[in-house]
Amino acid sequence: MEAGLVKFIDQRFLPLELKVYEARDFKEVGYAIGEMVVRGSPAIGAAAAFGMAQALEQGRDPKEVASHLRATRPTGHDLFFALEYMLEAHRRGRDPAEAAEAYARDSVERCRAIGQRGLPLLRQGSRVLTHCNAGALATVDYGTALAPIRRAHEEGLAPFVYVDETRPRLQGSRLTAWELEQEGIAHAVIADGAAGLLMLQGLVDLIMVGADRITASGDVANKVGTYEKAVLAKENGLPFYVAAPVSTFDFDLRGWRDIPIEERAAEEITEVAGVRVAPRGSPARNPAFDITPAKYVTGFITEVGILKPAEVGRLKAEAARFEGA
Amino acid sequence: MEAGLVKFIDQRFLPLELKVYEARDFKEVGYAIGEMVVRGSPAIGAAAAFGMAQALEQGRDPKEVASHLRATRPTGHDLFFALEYMLEAHRRGRDPAEAAEAYARDSVERCRAIGQRGLPLLRQGSRVLTHCNAGALATVDYGTALAPIRRAHEEGLAPFVYVDETRPRLQGSRLTAWELEQEGIAHAVIADGAAGLLMLQGLVDLIMVGADRITASGDVANKVGTYEKAVLAKENGLPFYVAAPVSTFDFDLRGWRDIPIEERAAEEITEVAGVRVAPRGSPARNPAFDITPAKYVTGFITEVGILKPAEVGRLKAEAARFEGA
Repeated sequence: MEAGLVKFIDQRFLPLELKVYEARDFKEVGYAIGEMVVRGSPAIGAAAAFGMAQALEQGRDPKEVASHLRATRPTGHDLFFALEYMLEAHRRGRDPAEAAEAYARDSVERCRAIGQRGLPLLRQGSRVLTHCNAGALATVDYGTALAPIRRAHEEGLAPFVYVDETRPRLQGSRLTAWELEQEGIAHAVIADGAAGLLMLQGLVDLIMVGADRITASGDVANKVGTYEKAVLAKENGLPFYVAAPVSTFDFDLRGWRDIPIEERAAEEITEVAGVRVAPRGSPARNPAFDITPAKYVTGFITEVGILKPAEVGRLKAEAARFEGA
Repeated sequence: MEAGLVKFIDQRFLPLELKVYEARDFKEVGYAIGEMVVRGSPAIGAAAAFGMAQALEQGRDPKEVASHLRATRPTGHDLFFALEYMLEAHRRGRDPAEAAEAYARDSVERCRAIGQRGLPLLRQGSRVLTHCNAGALATVDYGTALAPIRRAHEEGLAPFVYVDETRPRLQGSRLTAWELEQEGIAHAVIADGAAGLLMLQGLVDLIMVGADRITASGDVANKVGTYEKAVLAKENGLPFYVAAPVSTFDFDLRGWRDIPIEERAAEEITEVAGVRVAPRGSPARNPAFDITPAKYVTGFITEVGILKPAEVGRLKAEAARFEGA
């Protein structure tokens, strides 16, 4: 937040253009979230926190603002978590801008901790497959699934990353590859459908992804395609890790059927880079997320350690500490 | 073949433009195969048959022509099968154009038989997932995986088809959706990564795909991404069928490690519709096919019936009949 504007790198134009989107009010922040100017559950959480701070400084009704921002995207949990955090800060009379800054700062620390906690999972030359973007762009900084990879790179372990391009929005080829390229981390972009072959051929050592929402039972909502990688990992005897801060966990939900799956515009499928690829008369289905049931998850890499799905309940106390920060 | 030209619908431009590519000699036929003007293993086989007929009429050395065409694409088996057929016809003194016409005619009959054989697998309103294009465009006519679906549609069974868009070349959204739309068969295009979710949600009844090469042990090479669907089908208790004529079976190969997997240009991944999507410095891996080991295949829908992987050997006699046709 700067001079009353909430500023984002506009992720719709990366890696071709580095544009900044400036939101003048909470409706523009909502637009930025809904249109995926900013995306990635933890990043959306921080965007909402700053949007609320801006709105409070502009004298808006916090309930109206929260209600508007909550409706922008249904699946990721950090959005709801961050709004609760800001409403609680408001109730306690904290300065809104300071509260949002604290939220973002804390969020970065948690990502750094995820990197440190996940580091022991990587060996010299480990070949990691990842899906979508769970890097700095999906968070405030440093990332979730990419955090242990960054740490391994810093430690000279020379990790190699297979990057699912992640249709339809290509967050893998556009954003994850861009981050890895900037950091000098070795990688190759692949079509989403090629990941299975690479596992079958023994070219992948482990899978690391982020998450948008995780239930109390350890079921995971993440970018569509994640479930496919999880099943393939199990079939090929490979570990499948989900990296996420406690703000992504939703202890109110018992199982995956309770998670709302966002369906986005058909044009994300029928058009590519603005060019129509499917026939005019062809409809499309476009669920933006999918579900990976807990049984496919080897472990959750969180800021407080690596937990098995059955241990997720332990995080509840940590989430309460974050909220009360 | 018409007036000495081998003509193809140029599949690179569908569904936006219906262009015809005219090959004046076997090198242009080879170009059409290599650049995917024509694609789909049975269609490539017929293209090679006509290319050889044209070359023989132009007084070319059949061995040189066969050698050139064999090198265009390494994975699909029909190419090699069709060239053997034409060389045998030449040895027997058959008229080249007549032999190629007979090959193509026979190929269509076999596809129609696949449709008939596969029809009992579909019930009223069956929801079928398919990958890539195994329709009329991938064959001389009628298709392989799409043949039973066409038959079911003709019978009023109102099948519904989920079409994997099939990155990188989008044969699903560009070609399969186009064929289904032309025929009035209900369908929806999906991102490749969405298929798993639909299976998990109970929205898919069975999977039908084509094949580029099938070994004597029943291992299948098909468009990259097929293996992922097969594993997901198994995990979700869904039948997984591979539809192919005997010309796609390679009885000389025992297992999948013997199948050469074509690696195509990185730009198919890093560019979409001519627009660069990955950073300049990011490399890509682009295997065009993958392997589905026999254990994932419920059955092979062939022109002589539905066979289990262990029964593939029975087809050898039928293949010999085709070659001697």
